Amino acid sequence: MLYKKGSALEGVRVLDLGNVIAGPFTTAILADMGASVIKVEKPQGGDNARDNLPKKDGESTYFVNFNRSKKGVTLDLKKGKEIFFRLIERADVVVENFRPGVMEKLGYGYEELKKINSGIIYASVSGFGQNGPYKNRAGYDPLAQAMSGMMSVTGYPGSAPVRAGASVADILAAQNTAIAILAALMYRERTGEGQYIDVSLLDSAILSLSSVNQVYLTDKNNVPQRRGNGYVAGAPGSAYKCADGYVVFLALGEKAWLKLTEIMGRSDLQEMEKYGTNDARVENYLELDAEVEKWTADRTVDEVVSILNRENLPAAPILTVDQVYRDPHVRLREMFTKIKHPKIGEVEITNQAIKMSETCPYVRCSSPLLGEHNMEVYGELGFSREEIENFAEQGVL
Amino acid sequence: MLYKKGSALEGVRVLDLGNVIAGPFTTAILADMGASVIKVEKPQGGDNARDNLPKKDGESTYFVNFNRSKKGVTLDLKKGKEIFFRLIERADVVVENFRPGVMEKLGYGYEELKKINSGIIYASVSGFGQNGPYKNRAGYDPLAQAMSGMMSVTGYPGSAPVRAGASVADILAAQNTAIAILAALMYRERTGEGQYIDVSLLDSAILSLSSVNQVYLTDKNNVPQRRGNGYVAGAPGSAYKCADGYVVFLALGEKAWLKLTEIMGRSDLQEMEKYGTNDARVENYLELDAEVEKWTADRTVDEVVSILNRENLPAAPILTVDQVYRDPHVRLREMFTKIKHPKIGEVEITNQAIKMSETCPYVRCSSPLLGEHNMEVYGELGFSREEIENFAEQGVL
Repeated sequence: MLYKKGSALEGVRVLDLGNVIAGPFTTAILADMGASVIKVEKPQGGDNARDNLPKKDGESTYFVNFNRSKKGVTLDLKKGKEIFFRLIERADVVVENFRPGVMEKLGYGYEELKKINSGIIYASVSGFGQNGPYKNRAGYDPLAQAMSGMMSVTGYPGSAPVRAGASVADILAAQNTAIAILAALMYRERTGEGQYIDVSLLDSAILSLSSVNQVYLTDKNNVPQRRGNGYVAGAPGSAYKCADGYVVFLALGEKAWLKLTEIMGRSDLQEMEKYGTNDARVENYLELDAEVEKWTADRTVDEVVSILNRENLPAAPILTVDQVYRDPHVRLREMFTKIKHPKIGEVEITNQAIKMSETCPYVRCSSPLLGEHNMEVYGELGFSREEIENFAEQGVL
Repeated sequence: MLYKKGSALEGVRVLDLGNVIAGPFTTAILADMGASVIKVEKPQGGDNARDNLPKKDGESTYFVNFNRSKKGVTLDLKKGKEIFFRLIERADVVVENFRPGVMEKLGYGYEELKKINSGIIYASVSGFGQNGPYKNRAGYDPLAQAMSGMMSVTGYPGSAPVRAGASVADILAAQNTAIAILAALMYRERTGEGQYIDVSLLDSAILSLSSVNQVYLTDKNNVPQRRGNGYVAGAPGSAYKCADGYVVFLALGEKAWLKLTEIMGRSDLQEMEKYGTNDARVENYLELDAEVEKWTADRTVDEVVSILNRENLPAAPILTVDQVYRDPHVRLREMFTKIKHPKIGEVEITNQAIKMSETCPYVRCSSPLLGEHNMEVYGELGFSREEIENFAEQGVL
């Protein structure tokens, strides 16, 4: 199958008022799919992520990653109301991730913007959503992981809860927002009506725990706990230490269990009552994992993975980020890509995870410099060069 | 803001050939948004998840959760080619998550189905994608977490890597697939053309690590490591033990650091060179965290959270799944909802994380019993009651 680069969202005009991850990544998805995204930043310093590590020659590549494929303008939202309304007039979608209430205070609530553009799709991403007792709290990924239950089930039994090392709540929320925006565009196509969208990091993290939540929802006496790498559905299934790293594998079901014990030369385990059924193995998983680790300990990761995969047992090495980067499969899937930044040259970033045969998303260009497209974008809105220069002098841009 | 329940995807017809999570959750998102989803299951036992724990009175509520809002039919894909083609004729979207190659072997590759329905949008979700050396490996969430780098950055320094306790790779992949399907529907609206979509758990997990990857992509000598709950952007920022549980908080930047040390009555820390700048604090975070924990240790979680939030410092309790369920904010956000199952009555499940003012997604009905809608769905395709009964007798349904 060939994946032709293309623009599924050609003609869709998006304003990005976002900061850091959740808002900006929502619009990066749309931009890589061909939407025309204008990032609107405050004249002083712009998106806070412009200061985030890592940096190359003083420029944040963190910012570059989450803002590739967009154009950028500056605008003081307090002073530049007329300009902002002109931007809104010509937009299909606006995405913001200020704390709830900030846009309303600026006079840019949904009801206001609707007066300017009745079909506008207005998406707000926040830590906790637009209503409820916690709505005004700051929305950081670690807080969402803490309050969603995610951390309570991540880590080893008896030790402290652990945060997933990636900003999964941010990314999940951005993906949910993108889904909502696309559905809203389809609804507008049919009815002409725009709408308001409210997605939170906390809700998105809770949703990602669906299968874990289900355990508790089904039996309120059963509160899911940390199980290290123990797999709830069957045992053995965990991370095991090898001579040169770690491997993950699962032997789910009777056939896999018998096969694994044969491979390990441990058919004696088959006879033991404590490992006699899957339920028994799940119950005694810590002891069982120690037995399995005796077998992995003096083998390499590659050896264990290839022995098990040959027998059609699911197994994988635990790779570090540099190993992922070099992995031949990941290279072929083109999960990393390069853009050319106007100041610092080539920057490598992570690619989208969607392949499509006719309109495959792709990274189109660098993130914008602060205000890089002021002249172009505001010119298209009908402002003259002189007006734009005046705005800049007055600190509006 | 009022969120009116509605159907953004009204009129979109989806076939779900999925198993377990990634495929079924993709179509559950679409179904909760108003698409008409028909789940097609093998006559013997159906979706493998029908066997998954947890169960209530013998029925898997895990299956119920991922297949709510859908109708269900049975079909032996080998024997029922004619029937399958009729389903395809009337579908807009088909979603499958077999191992790559299985659909082709059945004669149901994209090129084949396109002949039946030229506008079909055909989405494949798999562990590793449709090409590359690992494409034939089984796709379990723990394998994707292992091979994406996720586990390598989750856990404490010096201890084993840890899997995020939720099936985040599955959920991320389902959300990516939903995004791709909606974009493809918009493209088809414009051009009449369908297309093929390929999303993998591995790619989706790698994408969720974007900000972590960026550290390595910017400096190939800097491989991200496990940092426990240490926050890379600033310190202190971690999980801290209280008298009755754990709390997460962050003091990012100078102002927050000064405020926190005042609150803790530890202005002496401000004078120390090892904590003199944010960079220094990030470097000495383990030592610093121990200082902070002296303050949290004899306070309750509620105390610490309310003291810090009062001062506008981001802080959150680490909640267990039952605490999340009872949380007043989560209740107000309606993150859990109930359906009525035809056999086992009321089942509580996790709700979608998207709120929309005009077409808010909602859970419409229970998951189907195996073959529950055979008569209705196949009747609508033009088969008579007698034909359908014959198909069932022959084991086609």
